Amino acid sequence: MSVTLYGYWRSLAAYRVRVALNLKGIDYEEISINLAAGEQFGEAYAALNPQHVLPILNHDGRDITQSMAILEYIEDTWSMPQLLPVTAYEKAQVRALALVTIADTHPLIVPRVRNFLHKEWNLDESAQTQWAQHWFTVGNEAIERILVKAGRAQTYSFGNEVSLADIALASHAIGAGLFKVDMNKTPVFAEVFKNCMLLPAFANAHPLKQEGAPRNA
Amino acid sequence: MSVTLYGYWRSLAAYRVRVALNLKGIDYEEISINLAAGEQFGEAYAALNPQHVLPILNHDGRDITQSMAILEYIEDTWSMPQLLPVTAYEKAQVRALALVTIADTHPLIVPRVRNFLHKEWNLDESAQTQWAQHWFTVGNEAIERILVKAGRAQTYSFGNEVSLADIALASHAIGAGLFKVDMNKTPVFAEVFKNCMLLPAFANAHPLKQEGAPRNA
Repeated sequence: MSVTLYGYWRSLAAYRVRVALNLKGIDYEEISINLAAGEQFGEAYAALNPQHVLPILNHDGRDITQSMAILEYIEDTWSMPQLLPVTAYEKAQVRALALVTIADTHPLIVPRVRNFLHKEWNLDESAQTQWAQHWFTVGNEAIERILVKAGRAQTYSFGNEVSLADIALASHAIGAGLFKVDMNKTPVFAEVFKNCMLLPAFANAHPLKQEGAPRNA
Repeated sequence: MSVTLYGYWRSLAAYRVRVALNLKGIDYEEISINLAAGEQFGEAYAALNPQHVLPILNHDGRDITQSMAILEYIEDTWSMPQLLPVTAYEKAQVRALALVTIADTHPLIVPRVRNFLHKEWNLDESAQTQWAQHWFTVGNEAIERILVKAGRAQTYSFGNEVSLADIALASHAIGAGLFKVDMNKTPVFAEVFKNCMLLPAFANAHPLKQEGAPRNA
């Protein structure tokens, strides 16, 4: 069996895949695609993923794109430990919480969006930071309210077993941290995140621990 | 059994859920939440969905949010006709294509984002239209390249059976149409969309056929 992740140290989507692979105990190799240098638009990468985005999971020669689809694939392929609950309703709760960040937050703050703000509207780095902080804050507040309403958060967001939702929430919290958004205003979320980061599967996948990351960030 | 959709005529995410319910032959009632009037921020709706976004599917008294999670729930709960293939790899292909628009396009053009552009940066309607057209175009081009590379498009995006990917692609094409993005530049995608719209499940769910839609749009 061969598993290769095309990722980048800073990519929150690649982070999610790394955590899932770690939780399932799957050995993998990571190939870094330098997003900052635009390598995702190069011919070699475009031949693998014509959407020009990270990550790709290659499993035994077949490529899978989109972090949420990859997480589901990992769950479908390697059953233990389970990262989705058993019933359709509970699965939906976990998926919906994950999508608050995978669909409704993260796509807003990726490089191609910030490039548009800069190139088309001449918005400088401080405006781009305002933008990212705004959407991470909106996401934080939504996640906190959802966790409080569901009333299921214990060690993790849906009880004492890690789920796909925790992987997504951890990626969100790491992004919020990189943009200096205050997690203390969302204490239930902050506690879940803290507990996730106590697990080596989450901690070792951290963007700042990957090759290529700045040493002093 | 009772199924209620909280939607809005113009919501592309509500459209996706309507199509899936129609394909499965599920009777449902729709309650309109007026996004244009900000009803999603009102207390009554916030008590149902603390993220303040549409849609919600209520099935026998339990609420499910996020269109992708709802589509998966519908598939998990009502098995026929199948909207996901059987193998993990093929499921991942369908999900990944759906997420090109559900995650990477649609969240960029929803009202809350256009409101931010207007309120924070004073960007007028023509700039907001430029923004929406840009992301629908980027999405169109990515979808076209993915369909061509996969080489599976026949009547629909993955052969002759409708899948969740087609539901997502149809919502994207409808959004692109509302913003006057030219579908002729993406002929494989345009053909799949045309074939989808020949099905009553897709056609009857169209935003402009819902209550509250403008008559002359």
